[in-house]
Amino acid sequence: MADNHMNIKITGTGLYLPPKIETSADIAPKIGKSEEWILVKSGVCERRVSDIDVDQMGAIAGKEALGNGGKPDLIINASGVPKQTIPDTATFYQRELGFEGIPSFSIHCTCLSFIVALNSVSSLIHSGTYKRILIISSDRGTRGRNFDEPESASLLGDGAAAVVVEPSSVNENSELIYFDMKTFPSCANLTEVRGGGTNKHPQDSDTTFADNLFTMDGPAVYKIARKEVYRMMLKTMKATGLKREDVDWVIPHQASGKAVDAYISTGGFAKEKVVSIISEFGNCVAASVPMAFATAVQDERIKRGDLLLFIGTGAGLSAACALIRY
Amino acid sequence: MADNHMNIKITGTGLYLPPKIETSADIAPKIGKSEEWILVKSGVCERRVSDIDVDQMGAIAGKEALGNGGKPDLIINASGVPKQTIPDTATFYQRELGFEGIPSFSIHCTCLSFIVALNSVSSLIHSGTYKRILIISSDRGTRGRNFDEPESASLLGDGAAAVVVEPSSVNENSELIYFDMKTFPSCANLTEVRGGGTNKHPQDSDTTFADNLFTMDGPAVYKIARKEVYRMMLKTMKATGLKREDVDWVIPHQASGKAVDAYISTGGFAKEKVVSIISEFGNCVAASVPMAFATAVQDERIKRGDLLLFIGTGAGLSAACALIRY
Repeated sequence: MADNHMNIKITGTGLYLPPKIETSADIAPKIGKSEEWILVKSGVCERRVSDIDVDQMGAIAGKEALGNGGKPDLIINASGVPKQTIPDTATFYQRELGFEGIPSFSIHCTCLSFIVALNSVSSLIHSGTYKRILIISSDRGTRGRNFDEPESASLLGDGAAAVVVEPSSVNENSELIYFDMKTFPSCANLTEVRGGGTNKHPQDSDTTFADNLFTMDGPAVYKIARKEVYRMMLKTMKATGLKREDVDWVIPHQASGKAVDAYISTGGFAKEKVVSIISEFGNCVAASVPMAFATAVQDERIKRGDLLLFIGTGAGLSAACALIRY
Repeated sequence: MADNHMNIKITGTGLYLPPKIETSADIAPKIGKSEEWILVKSGVCERRVSDIDVDQMGAIAGKEALGNGGKPDLIINASGVPKQTIPDTATFYQRELGFEGIPSFSIHCTCLSFIVALNSVSSLIHSGTYKRILIISSDRGTRGRNFDEPESASLLGDGAAAVVVEPSSVNENSELIYFDMKTFPSCANLTEVRGGGTNKHPQDSDTTFADNLFTMDGPAVYKIARKEVYRMMLKTMKATGLKREDVDWVIPHQASGKAVDAYISTGGFAKEKVVSIISEFGNCVAASVPMAFATAVQDERIKRGDLLLFIGTGAGLSAACALIRY
């Protein structure tokens, strides 16, 4: 495992929570279900709905993460859905942050974009290419809701979060310890937005309104995701020689109430160690993982030296995890 | 510079050229211009138009790049426009290749996706995360043509290319020597597809047909791109202590005939060293760079040990280059 250790440190975190709250009572009539049905199915009491676009949301979180530490030397967009097809959303973050000339690009794998970006930027730091990398995840899940699909429509919310990653110095023990990812294309059609690319182009007469909205076979995804994440968690513990008790915080993708609870019921982690923001913010696509992380850093639950397990599944279907000494 | 050297080797290349050819005489009436106007403005005699989607195109190129070397341990999509918004195009490549369980994600910065991916995967190999990475760039530029914008519409073409990157062994001198990138958001609106994301969502009543098509202020982009690429080229030579004559092959993004020629007229490279496929294939977005590379490898112009300069600009506006010992 020593091969995969990378001396990196998350030196800043930022969060943007849109002020407008939509409760499950508000959304119930739109999807033809009761408030109680939503709470039971999704575990989401309320979600935020943003009036500003993903670039502005992400730049607010990014600015907070940068703090007084100066400009980054790379800006990574790690979101689920872009601002537009071309150019890359990272360019628009940079514009909103008021910078010019900083390399900016995206790492994309839907809800896992942040976890995968965390390992990729650690490698870029390890190789000496960059020294101060800003990762921003910003998503407006509510823009893609299909109200004819009550379960997924009740899950999605808006939010943004950001981190700054830098090399850790020799007398610090901050590091990326382990990373793993798997993608199963046999499940590619379980979670989709079919439009937005060459497949169902807006100019095609057979592209429907629903093709541009989010669709998910929730129960099928849950079944496979639970199994694959459990396997990955066991493999991670075995590969690192660590035990569940060694992990201070599990920071899962906030896919649904049930999905977050599975880290306790199936995963065997103590309830108080699993960071959950699903009830207040819903599933904010790729922003969910860094939002949960930033929340627990900012309320001082997560402390320097803590062992963090970022883990989740996303459309693909993919599973990924990153074990980090904060 | 020693910090940035990474011991990697491109061990396989693949190419997919759609069989259907569209000449500039064919396209002339669609854009209301003469064949001669197109040849002078764009430098494109003919382009390919694909009947299959980006995932199938990319998988054909990917399969050729893999050869008999077995499965990759990571699949990277490095294209300009995705198959669909969710899940990631890399998942669909994997499905077409008949694999299951291989981690798959995208690195995106429009036309520079391949060059940026090349450095990112080199870092992932250098850090020991992966050992055999398949990068695929596949684009159907013709799907996004706006025939009311004759210059950009006459440039775009379809194609796909792929490479396999692995660690180089100690007695080989294959390596990534240098990488650089810059992004200038002040030029973000010079090259756009405004639709396909949260900005101009298909469900918004004010999203127009043209919002989903490619638009470019060609002369403005050319002016800035030429200056920035020239600066980057000089900086690269200075940083590495190399001279123009040391570079065996310049493999530029095939933005336009004029843009490729600028590496000779402004850049000062010998004409026979600059790989140009713009006349036969047009601007194939992110696929252009690896298509030019694969073409020159397959016709045996590029040989083991050659020094290659991958360079170009893309929407963002970004400039990037990677210097590789093949």
